[in-house]
Amino acid sequence: MESTDPVTRTPAQNAQLALLLEVSGTPKPGNVDREREYDDLLFEHFVAGAVGAFDGLQLAADGEAVGRSFERAIAGMSQQGGGNTQFGALLLIVPLLAATASGPLTRDRAAGVVQETTVEDAVDFYREFDHVNVAVDEPPEGMEPLDVRRGSNAEQAIRDRELTLGALMEESADRDGIAAEWTRGFPRTFEAATGLQRSDGPVTNRASALFLALLASEVDTFVVTQHDSETALEVKERAEAVLRGDEDPYELATEFVDRGINPGTTADIVAGALFIALEGELRV
Amino acid sequence: MESTDPVTRTPAQNAQLALLLEVSGTPKPGNVDREREYDDLLFEHFVAGAVGAFDGLQLAADGEAVGRSFERAIAGMSQQGGGNTQFGALLLIVPLLAATASGPLTRDRAAGVVQETTVEDAVDFYREFDHVNVAVDEPPEGMEPLDVRRGSNAEQAIRDRELTLGALMEESADRDGIAAEWTRGFPRTFEAATGLQRSDGPVTNRASALFLALLASEVDTFVVTQHDSETALEVKERAEAVLRGDEDPYELATEFVDRGINPGTTADIVAGALFIALEGELRV
Repeated sequence: MESTDPVTRTPAQNAQLALLLEVSGTPKPGNVDREREYDDLLFEHFVAGAVGAFDGLQLAADGEAVGRSFERAIAGMSQQGGGNTQFGALLLIVPLLAATASGPLTRDRAAGVVQETTVEDAVDFYREFDHVNVAVDEPPEGMEPLDVRRGSNAEQAIRDRELTLGALMEESADRDGIAAEWTRGFPRTFEAATGLQRSDGPVTNRASALFLALLASEVDTFVVTQHDSETALEVKERAEAVLRGDEDPYELATEFVDRGINPGTTADIVAGALFIALEGELRV
Repeated sequence: MESTDPVTRTPAQNAQLALLLEVSGTPKPGNVDREREYDDLLFEHFVAGAVGAFDGLQLAADGEAVGRSFERAIAGMSQQGGGNTQFGALLLIVPLLAATASGPLTRDRAAGVVQETTVEDAVDFYREFDHVNVAVDEPPEGMEPLDVRRGSNAEQAIRDRELTLGALMEESADRDGIAAEWTRGFPRTFEAATGLQRSDGPVTNRASALFLALLASEVDTFVVTQHDSETALEVKERAEAVLRGDEDPYELATEFVDRGINPGTTADIVAGALFIALEGELRV
């Protein structure tokens, strides 16, 4: 009698599951979740994005270059009608996934992936901007040739300056929460993952609780980019009020959706933390 | 300048997406959906089931035997805490997916897959029952050696009778809605897929509308097995009342969840129809 081998989720499957669990948490004020959608950005767009991203995630887990893996993940994620659903989450998860190619996921291994990125990774990263619209600020003075909105046209400027993808992220670390994670060894993401593993109850509830805690702890850089610093600070303060019990998270969620306030960076950190936790002790 | 190849979803990815869209439709009276869960059967269990099923779906799309592909899909689907989340949906989708290995998905190709199933497929199918608990009736008289609850112990009985998986399904076609689809060339599933492609709006809304229409059109055989014929008939009549506007679907959903009435076969047909429609003109 032949026996069936035990089946466990692979790192790439855990990464896909993390994307799906992130969007399934509710309420997450301002973001699409199981109970809230925008007219042109639906729950199903995020679901299809997670399905389409899988091949790129698998490449990263197999040890393919980070830039190439990310490019493939974005190309697959984009095959749905909602546009850019999971760009930041994939930018955060791909190096974490790449770290699992050489052993269990640790902060050291993840930082090592960033250190080992190349100029080719940076070129592949820029190529993404040919395919998706990503909300970004004007580049700082002197960085105009590297404006990501130039897409693959920035290739020569990257090569001339011999910029690796890690170095590129460092340039944006002060104003982009995901670039900050890349540059600083993913401190918020790993800390959040620890919290997810210590709490209990349905994972999607833990994810939404984590979202609120993170939203109250730092301004969301995507809200700064999409709106302004004042709005981002208000978002942080309103999240603090929810944690104090002074505001209702469901009402806040409705208000933020109505105002088009979408704390995307915070959601990306939750997705990254879910991936780390699934690679650890978190069970679904 | 290297260009990125256009990326489209593969049949296996469409099958995974179909599982995810099915559980995302709401309201679907009695079933887990985005807004309703049982204490021990959560939305996230279905999401993890769809993630885990992928390798088996890929095998089917690659032309691996139906029984072996199904076994792999079930083994992967089962790696979550909710138990048997998508057994019936996978049983319906795997032959449809196998049909895509030889060309565009048609009823003829799907019926051909069933006709070509082997005794080995039947043995592999029975092996699944070693791994998951599936609600089934007592076997008919004379069929006791083939009781699926015997799992792999039924292997000799299958070989002695030279039963293919298609022939096995035929034995259950009168009392199991998925076996009926296998045996009759998938008529309800393909018809439902046509409806999905002709309607408009968010796909998850179309999926829940389809669920109600199917629930009103035939008794759900899973409800017959889990409860009895009277309950199944009541479910059908209550769904008809919703379609007439005499009942509120959200209230009915709450009532059915409270009573543990879970029309699983109808949900499986919706998942199969979503897959066919995604292989056709349905866009997310």
